[in-house]
Amino acid sequence: MNPRVLEIPGSLIREVAAKKKPSSIDLGLGEPSLMPNPAHLDAAMAYVREHGIKYTPNAGTHELREAIARHYAYPDRHRADNVCVTTGSQEAMYVALKTLLDPARDELLVVDPAFPSYVKMAKLEGVAVRTVAMSAGDGFAFDAARIADAIGERTRAIVICSPNNPTGRTIDRAQAQALVNVLEARAGDPVWIVHDEIYREQTFIDDAGYFAQIYPYTIVTNSVSKSNALTGLRLGWILAPHDFVTNAIKAHAWLTSCTDTFAQHVGLHIFETPGGIAEHANWYREQWHGVVHALEASGLHFIKPEGSFYACVQLPPGMGSLDGALRLLEERDVLAIPGAAFGAAFEGWLRLSWVAPIARVREGVQRIAAFVGATSS
Amino acid sequence: MNPRVLEIPGSLIREVAAKKKPSSIDLGLGEPSLMPNPAHLDAAMAYVREHGIKYTPNAGTHELREAIARHYAYPDRHRADNVCVTTGSQEAMYVALKTLLDPARDELLVVDPAFPSYVKMAKLEGVAVRTVAMSAGDGFAFDAARIADAIGERTRAIVICSPNNPTGRTIDRAQAQALVNVLEARAGDPVWIVHDEIYREQTFIDDAGYFAQIYPYTIVTNSVSKSNALTGLRLGWILAPHDFVTNAIKAHAWLTSCTDTFAQHVGLHIFETPGGIAEHANWYREQWHGVVHALEASGLHFIKPEGSFYACVQLPPGMGSLDGALRLLEERDVLAIPGAAFGAAFEGWLRLSWVAPIARVREGVQRIAAFVGATSS
Repeated sequence: MNPRVLEIPGSLIREVAAKKKPSSIDLGLGEPSLMPNPAHLDAAMAYVREHGIKYTPNAGTHELREAIARHYAYPDRHRADNVCVTTGSQEAMYVALKTLLDPARDELLVVDPAFPSYVKMAKLEGVAVRTVAMSAGDGFAFDAARIADAIGERTRAIVICSPNNPTGRTIDRAQAQALVNVLEARAGDPVWIVHDEIYREQTFIDDAGYFAQIYPYTIVTNSVSKSNALTGLRLGWILAPHDFVTNAIKAHAWLTSCTDTFAQHVGLHIFETPGGIAEHANWYREQWHGVVHALEASGLHFIKPEGSFYACVQLPPGMGSLDGALRLLEERDVLAIPGAAFGAAFEGWLRLSWVAPIARVREGVQRIAAFVGATSS
Repeated sequence: MNPRVLEIPGSLIREVAAKKKPSSIDLGLGEPSLMPNPAHLDAAMAYVREHGIKYTPNAGTHELREAIARHYAYPDRHRADNVCVTTGSQEAMYVALKTLLDPARDELLVVDPAFPSYVKMAKLEGVAVRTVAMSAGDGFAFDAARIADAIGERTRAIVICSPNNPTGRTIDRAQAQALVNVLEARAGDPVWIVHDEIYREQTFIDDAGYFAQIYPYTIVTNSVSKSNALTGLRLGWILAPHDFVTNAIKAHAWLTSCTDTFAQHVGLHIFETPGGIAEHANWYREQWHGVVHALEASGLHFIKPEGSFYACVQLPPGMGSLDGALRLLEERDVLAIPGAAFGAAFEGWLRLSWVAPIARVREGVQRIAAFVGATSS
């Protein structure tokens, strides 16, 4: 068998989550607890009842590609041929990295803490990976200078997830511009930015930076999974310069042929509905106020989220995050995800999601505070 | 960019199909013209309206995995943990090849004529490919001795599509057993068989061979695309020994996370409906009688299909298949697929699909016969 596949370790997130009890307060979830708007599902169902469920073009239907491109209206990326519709943002990222990077030569730079998929995908492709960790001292804020300093000879792309999973930090316009300035001043082949925008509709700061607005060598990946509570629909996309998309479509075509026609019609209805992609944004903003209050009242050391639906809290000095998460579940019946799952830089932290009813989130935060208080003394 | 992606040529099939006119008789289609049974869609819709569309486990829901494994009841592959649900049989094949083959060492043997995806997937992974062509002299029948002779030092897997796209040939039990006998007599690491069973429900001979019934190192890929007229649903699966599936799930997880939850519930309803996976089989058998009669009456040199929904006819000596297909479309307004798309061994042939209404298929066959007659003289 392929040693690259054999070497993939099991998921630490799933390992911890598997120990959850029915009574547990679940702050581990990486998906919305909301229900999707049934209007989108009904529209897709009406289409497939009339037309069946046939193949679409490899890149997706023209209507959906156009609707996505027009919605974001990024410079030089606002036409249908700038979009490849994919099986969720996971396949979008996989195809983007596979198309962009030559395993014989190129290196990927991953900004940590980060969801483990980027590193695992690169390893599966035999692509070298370098990581650059943001600093615990300023709550893992995106630091353009630190990212720029980590660029090596062979670095051909940088993956940035903003708003970030797990930290909840969002890169601001000034830091995004500072990084782009460095990249544009470099000689030689361009270094691409792959911006994972999966939490774009859960953004709580006003000056969030979007690389596709300011840097031509940007590839955006996104999906309706988090914005519209449709994680299981597997509808995502790549938004990129036309030449890049032309090649990405070829890789996508041989991986999965095309994305589910039903899912594409759900997505089309979302983008044709005014405000459709942002229809859950107000709910997240209310939840965000609730969790920030709860964290401020808790006495915990936490990172105030600027986006996503996570908040991160620090464990007592010396306590490993896996050990901490397992003890928290055992002693206080609260599920949180150990920071170690997101890179060595996030050891000593726990990631909490706050998509449960806010009273449950508050109760969970209080139990964590009691746990940290008891184990610190 | 990744040279392996850049080097992928465009699809010859799509290039020819793009020239189709509204008036054309379309014998190019690779998908059913039937509509899917709405009961399966309704069942999935009822589920997602009540439960939303959340992630399933990476490998798919336990219920669907179990229903698939039990339906086929292959020895040592009849349990849920023998199944990985995938985004169509395309991702099933991609994940199977990626998991099985080490690009640094292994070689894939593809039995030609074959749908071009196997070779393109292997090239995308940097895996060496060897092809072995069946013989035009006996209508491209599967020939175990010829396949066995082509196995090389580094051959680690053989891909066989039976019933075959494009030839319509189906390997019979005796030939399948003869190949397995050779493989079992070999020393050293086993050579795996990847059996693409996508046209299993369109089988018109009684003694079709199924490698998973007789050879432990068999990986089956399949989907509901062709059996249930659900090509755009993208619901497929890998059915294989447990150890292999455990590793395949890891590759699948990082490629696409999991398969569309809606699609999985469509699939579950199909497998829970008695005869559900075979519900279109009678229609295909009637079409098959019609097309065989039309071909016999036409005077064309053709391969009598034993399975799939294709029939292949020979062009006049010396006429290239791309040239022939383009002229046929231009002069007689009939779309057929050039054999060159399926490997050099199939040059000089055309692939016809026979999923259009039978009167249209008959008219198309007559026009091809007139074309061949006129260009032969």
